[in-house]
Formats: sequence, structure tokens, C-alpha cells
Amino acid sequence: MTYSDTPILECIPNFSEGRDSAVVDEIAGAIASVPGVLLLRRESDGDHNRSVVTFAGPPAAVVDAAVAGASAAVARIDLNRHTGAHPRMGAVDVVPFVPIRGLTMSDAVVYAREAAERIWRELALPVYLYEESATRGSHVNLADLRRGQFEGIREAIATDPVRTPDIGGPAVHPTAGIVAVGARKPLVAWNVLLATTDVSIAKSIAREVRGSSGGMPTVKALGFAIPSKGCVQVSMNLTDYTTTPMHAAFEAVRAAAGRLGVEILGTELIGLVPQDAIAATAEYYLKIGEFSIERVLEPRIERVDRSTRSGTGSEG
Amino acid sequence: MTYSDTPILECIPNFSEGRDSAVVDEIAGAIASVPGVLLLRRESDGDHNRSVVTFAGPPAAVVDAAVAGASAAVARIDLNRHTGAHPRMGAVDVVPFVPIRGLTMSDAVVYAREAAERIWRELALPVYLYEESATRGSHVNLADLRRGQFEGIREAIATDPVRTPDIGGPAVHPTAGIVAVGARKPLVAWNVLLATTDVSIAKSIAREVRGSSGGMPTVKALGFAIPSKGCVQVSMNLTDYTTTPMHAAFEAVRAAAGRLGVEILGTELIGLVPQDAIAATAEYYLKIGEFSIERVLEPRIERVDRSTRSGTGSEG
Repeated sequence: MTYSDTPILECIPNFSEGRDSAVVDEIAGAIASVPGVLLLRRESDGDHNRSVVTFAGPPAAVVDAAVAGASAAVARIDLNRHTGAHPRMGAVDVVPFVPIRGLTMSDAVVYAREAAERIWRELALPVYLYEESATRGSHVNLADLRRGQFEGIREAIATDPVRTPDIGGPAVHPTAGIVAVGARKPLVAWNVLLATTDVSIAKSIAREVRGSSGGMPTVKALGFAIPSKGCVQVSMNLTDYTTTPMHAAFEAVRAAAGRLGVEILGTELIGLVPQDAIAATAEYYLKIGEFSIERVLEPRIERVDRSTRSGTGSEG
Repeated sequence: MTYSDTPILECIPNFSEGRDSAVVDEIAGAIASVPGVLLLRRESDGDHNRSVVTFAGPPAAVVDAAVAGASAAVARIDLNRHTGAHPRMGAVDVVPFVPIRGLTMSDAVVYAREAAERIWRELALPVYLYEESATRGSHVNLADLRRGQFEGIREAIATDPVRTPDIGGPAVHPTAGIVAVGARKPLVAWNVLLATTDVSIAKSIAREVRGSSGGMPTVKALGFAIPSKGCVQVSMNLTDYTTTPMHAAFEAVRAAAGRLGVEILGTELIGLVPQDAIAATAEYYLKIGEFSIERVLEPRIERVDRSTRSGTGSEG
């Protein structure tokens, strides 16, 4: 068995520090130092004051690295002194695990649970289990969990049983708050930049396109001001790009912006985008019949190579 | 060293049989029977009366398989009885080799030459060396080599020194004609179907968009009638999709068709499309800033994994 046959789990923790690169260096360094972990990408946003680290590897290594990254964040980030455009509740704010290869969603739920328990036991950071890992319906949706942010949760948690952590607590960590940990499908985290400084336009478009207010299913969206770029942003998560693909979300934002007389400056991806989502985009705009990732050279080689070596035979 | 670290050469031979599936089965079977070869795709077009087999693997195996496929085609296809929309000069018409991984273009030229010499020596099929393998300027371009097709070349080859084979000859093979063998960059072979039965419209659009008649660089295009689908087709080869990307070719065909009042029904890819070309499409239509294949999850994992295992270290 070669390395490329081992199961691969992805983890994309978000940390509440996007301005002090020394702190983000420490966090990313802690993650990358775990043997077997592949550090895939790291990005910081000063306006959001938030960083996203993307890594993958064999599940046990990925769990170790997630805990190591959380540990560095708890040691260095104080939510009492944190400001930024993006809502946040913890020093390490959310730790999603995504099954990439050779793993089921149930496997990913088990690994997420293991990471969550260690985060409480080793770091005294209480945990909400969210998405596929949720053990309560009211904790599935990250936006619900994050309502009121660090300061609001700190108050509400004592009196509102819905806000009780799923692991640890009962209070939030005094400086690091609380974290959401869970398994989920791959998603597309994607910002559309609009040629205006009027944040109400971004908020209005976000409201129009997101599922929770009657827009497109599996689309989450928020509007933010982006002073560093002199524009505003519709920040989207496509939580199931097979239900609402990238082109549908993009065209919906473009149409809404057009009605408000605002142009799209460009878009920004956060983290990495699944290749299926990119293939579906080309299929749509180039009107390619019978297209899928099976028609793309490099993934096709990879897949046929893997199936040949695993003895399932060549593919027709 | 694992299999996935070995060099990978791709070969995409085109055969002049797209109607008799038993013949294509034999050809594909001969190719797939070579150990180490990954059969990636096979497709036949009855209107063109032509089939394309896409395979890849370690270079020595790929050369063996190319010769094996050519051998089956020479044994089973008689150009004297072949008709089809697509121009053709040989039973195996063109055998391109593309360096995919761990190989330079010069390496691919060497392997193509080796295949060409064996095709002449073992099958008595004369060869034009084309594209990067050409040894004469007049033999670089496949369209020039194929002028007059099987019947025309059979006549011209005796009197016109430009038509002399580069390997073998001097006459064409009595039933299998002559074949073009060479190394080239990956290309995008792509048909655009138009909602008309008037082939002159497809020919006119092909003339407008192709480089040789003043259109876009690195675009080859021909117009064909496609009776089986009740439409016509602009059949393109994008020989360098970094120079003229897919979206540019598509939008040019769409604009030309629009001026003629004809709609695009859809498009068809032949063979496999390089992932970079698909990523560039998404970047363009979704206006994604700083996008590349490095931002796509699965290829990014693959690349970081490979560079980590090869000891070049992790990537930032």
C-alpha cells in the first residue's frame, strides 16, 4: 500500500486572528509539525481579523494537528480584545472535518468527536458539535450557534439551555470562548466583491440569495464592509454545491447587484474548492454535454491508476 | 518509489473506424492488454467514422501499446472502403504523444520517434513526423500533411517531394495509408453543435475563428455536417489553451453564430481535457481572483503529497 492509498481527512479550522502574522505562523507551524499532515493553504483576512488553515492527511494525524492548532490559538488569542467584521465565538472558532478519500461521513463524525473531546480535556475549551456531528437539532447550523458572538454567548450560556456546550463548559473559556467542531461535506467558501462602499447593498444581496431568508438552498451569505479594499462583500458558503452550484450562486448575486446598479469587481475563494465544483462550472458556461470530472485528464489518470492498483480492474 | 511517482506519457491515437464496434474493440483491447497501460477513454463517432482512444502510463508501455493499437488498425481497416466526414489519411490516422508528468517535451519526442520507427518496421506503415517531432517545417502542421486525404496523398506522394514520408515509404500502405506520429502539448479537442442543418454556416464560423485564416492563434477549426444529430458542428482543436483559452474560443463561436442567427445547441469534448483548462474557465466566468489549479482541493493534495514524499518539503 502506498501513501496515496491511505484514507484522507481534511480539516479547515478558522482562527480569530487575521492581523498578527506571528500568531498565525505559530498556529500554522503547530499544525504542520505533525508528521503526515499536508499543509495545503493558509490565508488571513485583516478586515475579518480571521485566518483559515487548510490541511489534510491520514485521520489520526489530522486530529492531532487540529488539537495542536487549537492549542496554539487558545494560548495566543484573547477574544476580549478581538474585533473584526466576521462574527466569531472562539479563538479557534470552527473546526470542520471533511472526508476526502476512503472515509465515510460517519468516520469523519467519529474523528471530529475525538478532536472535540481532546479540545475540552486538554485545552479547557468547551465545544459545540455542529453539522453532521450535532447531537441536538438546534446545534446543526453554525449561524445559530454563533448568534450573539463571544460576548453574547458568554452571557446567554448560563441561562439558556439551548446555548449549553455539547462537550465541557458550563461557562465559555475566559479568553478563548467556545468552538464549533464537526464533520461536514466539502463546501465552497466564496466572497463576491461589489463596486460600492454601501454595506447595506451587500447585506441586502446576501439576504436575497441565502436559503435562510428564502433564497437558494444550501447557500449561506452575509454582507460585510471591506474598508481595506474600498468595497463591500457578499460572503457566501455553498454548503452543498451539487444542490446550488457555483454558477447559480454567482448569477444570482450578479442579477441582484445588477438590479441595484452595482457591478461585481471580482470574487475570492477561501481555502480550496472541490474539483467537482469547478468541473460543473465549465460544464455550465461552455455547455459541455456529458461532462464530469471523469473527462478531466489528471483526475482520470489518478482514478484509473488507483482502481488498477487496487485490483478493481481497468475502467471502460 | 510508488507507481504514482513514475513518469507518465499520454497517447491519443485516432483510428479511421467509428461504426464497427468490433473493430474498435480489437484496437482498444490490443492497447489495454499492455501491462502498465491505463486505458482512460474511448469514443467513436459514426458521422466522422473515426474513434479516439486515450491512454497513459510509463513511457515504454505506452509506446508498446501505441504500436499494438496501430497493428490492430492496419490489420482491420481498409482506407479504400472508408468514408466519413472527417479528413483521414491512415487506418491509424494520427498518434500524438503528450508528456504528462516527469517528462520533458524532448523525452516525448524521443518516444514518439521510437513508436514511429517501429510502426514502419513492424507494420510497413509509412510515417509523417509532425508537431514537435517534425524534422521538416512543412510537416509540423497536421492539416498540411492530411491535405488530399488518403486518396490524394497516394497520388501526390510519388511526384511531390514535400509529401515524402519521414520514415518508410516511398509509397503509402495499400490499405492503411500513412500515419502522422509526433509529440505535442496537451490540446483541447472540442466540437460546438449549432442549431442548423446548413453546413456552410459551420464552415464559415470555422474559417472565422481559426488561426490559419486570421482568427484566433492556436485554434484549428473545421465545419462538418452531423446528419445523425440533425445539426452541424464546428470542430476545434485548441493546440495551446494558455494562448487561446476555452472561454475565448467558445465566446468567439457564440458571437459568430449569433451574427448568423444560429444558436449553440451544446458542445462535446473529445478525449480528456487538461485540468488547467477547466480551472481557467471557472476563473474567467466566475471572476475568481488569483485562481489556479493550486486552489483546487484534490490536485492540491496530490501535489503537496508528492512534493512531501519526494523530499522537496511542504509548500507554503
